[in-house]
Amino acid sequence: MPIIQFNMLEGRTTEMKRELAAKVTDTVVAVLGVKRETVRILIHEMGMQDFSVGGVTAQDRLASNGGAVNGAGHPIDYNATVQATAGAKA
Amino acid sequence: MPIIQFNMLEGRTTEMKRELAAKVTDTVVAVLGVKRETVRILIHEMGMQDFSVGGVTAQDRLASNGGAVNGAGHPIDYNATVQATAGAKA
Amino acid sequence: MPIIQFNMLEGRTTEMKRELAAKVTDTVVAVLGVKRETVRILIHEMGMQDFSVGGVTAQDRLASNGGAVNGAGHPIDYNATVQATAGAKA
Amino acid sequence: MPIIQFNMLEGRTTEMKRELAAKVTDTVVAVLGVKRETVRILIHEMGMQDFSVGGVTAQDRLASNGGAVNGAGHPIDYNATVQATAGAKA
Amino acid sequence: MPIIQFNMLEGRTTEMKRELAAKVTDTVVAVLGVKRETVRILIHEMGMQDFSVGGVTAQDRLASNGGAVNGAGHPIDYNATVQATAGAKA
Amino acid sequence: MPIIQFNMLEGRTTEMKRELAAKVTDTVVAVLGVKRETVRILIHEMGMQDFSVGGVTAQDRLASNGGAVNGAGHPIDYNATVQATAGAKA
Repeated sequence: MPIIQFNMLEGRTTEMKRELAAKVTDTVVAVLGVKRETVRILIHEMGMQDFSVGGVTAQDRLASNGGAVNGAGHPIDYNATVQATAGAKA
Repeated sequence: MPIIQFNMLEGRTTEMKRELAAKVTDTVVAVLGVKRETVRILIHEMGMQDFSVGGVTAQDRLASNGGAVNGAGHPIDYNATVQATAGAKA
Repeated sequence: MPIIQFNMLEGRTTEMKRELAAKVTDTVVAVLGVKRETVRILIHEMGMQDFSVGGVTAQDRLASNGGAVNGAGHPIDYNATVQATAGAKA
Repeated sequence: MPIIQFNMLEGRTTEMKRELAAKVTDTVVAVLGVKRETVRILIHEMGMQDFSVGGVTAQDRLASNGGAVNGAGHPIDYNATVQATAGAKA
Repeated sequence: MPIIQFNMLEGRTTEMKRELAAKVTDTVVAVLGVKRETVRILIHEMGMQDFSVGGVTAQDRLASNGGAVNGAGHPIDYNATVQATAGAKA
Repeated sequence: MPIIQFNMLEGRTTEMKRELAAKVTDTVVAVLGVKRETVRILIHEMGMQDFSVGGVTAQDRLASNGGAVNGAGHPIDYNATVQATAGAKA
């Protein structure tokens, strides 16, 4: 019966989401002892201008880190960006 | 003053949302006795790859049920899909 | 599959919550055409100091309305308070 | 460590979001005394058909107010609309 | 940077929560490739009268399943209850 | 019309919450240009075992920092704890 909401930056592939759903469910079943089919996972994605740490949006933090950004404001090297964005001081 | 958030698969029409807002508000007013204008309803829609039950995304559950899916990954027969997706074991 | 979260002031009785769950589910099934057992409702209650409208907490708004409050900060006449609190300008 | 979620109608500019992140963080740091880099802000935007007050969607409320709406259902004069939409009775 | 909210019935021990935090974080780091210290997990617990499936609260579903409930409305055998409550058809 | 949810560790005083509601509302009105009475703020408090950063609960992080904790698991020096808890690596 756990209902689990993920808030994360947009851009993960369908394959990553599929793996996230399967493996987080495995983990929750193992730890809490609930039946597998009672676990629900919801993913809410945010644009890089919609998430901020310490008052600086992910978009601006990326830019100040010298990250390459394409026309839609998405970083070209996503994994590096996620880590640069969210990992620096926060 | 109730603030009510719906999380549901994307794809409902504007008409269904309008009816949902009106009738859920009617119900909440009748049960809780609050003033109508204090009821707020927020709808958050999710893509079929962003919602999973039992570790399987709605997209994959639909595919395994033999549902027809169009290019954007939305089921062609939406109501049937929603029921197939969410209703099986969960 | 709709997952519905209510945020509301604390204090409703178990009977009101039971009725809310049943009737909101009826409404959602009727409007969206989903199977009844796929509807989940979660209630999050807030204390009167944890909800504000226009920058004024429900607790302070009640006090300024002359509402009687018991030792725990809950209004004595709950329904009247909810309406006074949330209904005035908002 | 506060994690702050904004739910608001879509359409604010990147500049408004940047300013919102910076100034709300300033305020939270000043009031709660937490370290700046521990404050996270998430923005969830809603379409005008996905938010209702008193059982009427923002889209319909705007239309009944005589607001001009473009093809995508967004108001042409956004700030006026936001106020007309959310401010009338609620 | 993922922010993960769990909604689940109240009653898990501190030890289960500690294990949940550690192992879900392990899983998220492995799947998404984010830095460990950027993963935040929030647990929101609900009373059994505050969660319903198919319009029936967990409290009533438990009672109809013949579960033993103590004075505070919590089931005596928690794990069995969670499964009985959430697992039946939903 | 913005609806703003705060998730934070439990323990702030009523006075801090009153100030938070007032000043965050001031800020939101100034930045977004919405009417004051349309801003709603909801506070959800979490126990120290219900919030984790990097897979470690706030309770355990505090303990490992040598923080004094009273019988209910709350830190004796709250502000210092909040900063120690949330500020270290995250």
